Amino acid sequence: MPKIVNHEERKTQIAKATWNVIAKYGLEGASVRSIAKEANLSLGAVRHYFNTQEELLEFAMQLVEEQVRERIIEHTKRPLSLKEITLNILMELVPFENRNIEMQVWLEYVSYKIRKKEVGEDNVYSAVVQLVTKLNDEGVLQENIFLEEEIVHLHALIDGLALHILMGVVPIGEERVRYLIRRELDRLFK
Amino acid sequence: MPKIVNHEERKTQIAKATWNVIAKYGLEGASVRSIAKEANLSLGAVRHYFNTQEELLEFAMQLVEEQVRERIIEHTKRPLSLKEITLNILMELVPFENRNIEMQVWLEYVSYKIRKKEVGEDNVYSAVVQLVTKLNDEGVLQENIFLEEEIVHLHALIDGLALHILMGVVPIGEERVRYLIRRELDRLFK
Repeated sequence: MPKIVNHEERKTQIAKATWNVIAKYGLEGASVRSIAKEANLSLGAVRHYFNTQEELLEFAMQLVEEQVRERIIEHTKRPLSLKEITLNILMELVPFENRNIEMQVWLEYVSYKIRKKEVGEDNVYSAVVQLVTKLNDEGVLQENIFLEEEIVHLHALIDGLALHILMGVVPIGEERVRYLIRRELDRLFK
Repeated sequence: MPKIVNHEERKTQIAKATWNVIAKYGLEGASVRSIAKEANLSLGAVRHYFNTQEELLEFAMQLVEEQVRERIIEHTKRPLSLKEITLNILMELVPFENRNIEMQVWLEYVSYKIRKKEVGEDNVYSAVVQLVTKLNDEGVLQENIFLEEEIVHLHALIDGLALHILMGVVPIGEERVRYLIRRELDRLFK
């Protein structure tokens, strides 16, 4: 009897092996060969799902985004105040617990785009823009704030914290980081 | 008549070629061969100054730090208030003008250390700790602040802004970024 392979699971397995390879060798080091080795699969098995390295890297990046997006959507469904939901969403972008690898893949992708001079857009930035704009449309933010600057400020704080947690130079724990972000929201919310 | 070579200038020329190579190919791509090519020198000429790739990369990184440190020292000599001097120093860590390449080399170095799991220290973090601690010792900061948290906050904001400017996702100019940092100092200073 032939072994039954769940194709979606197999693709996810390959994507996660890709994350591990990127985390160890950077994006340039993520060849289909090294990914197949990491996933304990033959080169042919990986090529069955992804024709090119670009296709594979794109899928691996999309999986990071999808996972983060799903967790964010879960937060929006909880019966909490908009401020608490916003805080929970922003904490998703800071790599405590098991989210370290996602953040590292993101950092490698960002560095890669800067090297290739393919800059000027970023999904985290778009997410913060969308979030703050929506809150402002809901009428829950202070009325005298300059929205564009507050978005730059909040985005910088979140990504700076994320980068430093990844670097291991943050001497305070998750609860205190949460407090620092809450303090910003206290300033922005009515 | 043999050509007279200024050895310090030659080493600096090689270090700057190293920056360009790192900015294009990342730290793993910065071989002595590619650096010699970028500097328009023979492999032997580069090896005359640097025996190993590590020696060369270390010198290139030290030159970044030295340049930043020298500019910071210049700021401390100017006859301004401690708050203005602090603001000028922090703005040195944000890559406007020609400081883009320094910041990119720093980012590649940080990503490299994270990949190698050699984390837990960072010169920018040490600089912010030193700066804020000194200001606190001078008695110019608010007395009810939790110093460790404020250092984490300021460091995150600065590096987040730096990263985003490098990524090209900051839609506001240098003067408005300066305002965002000044606002933090207004909160911290008496």
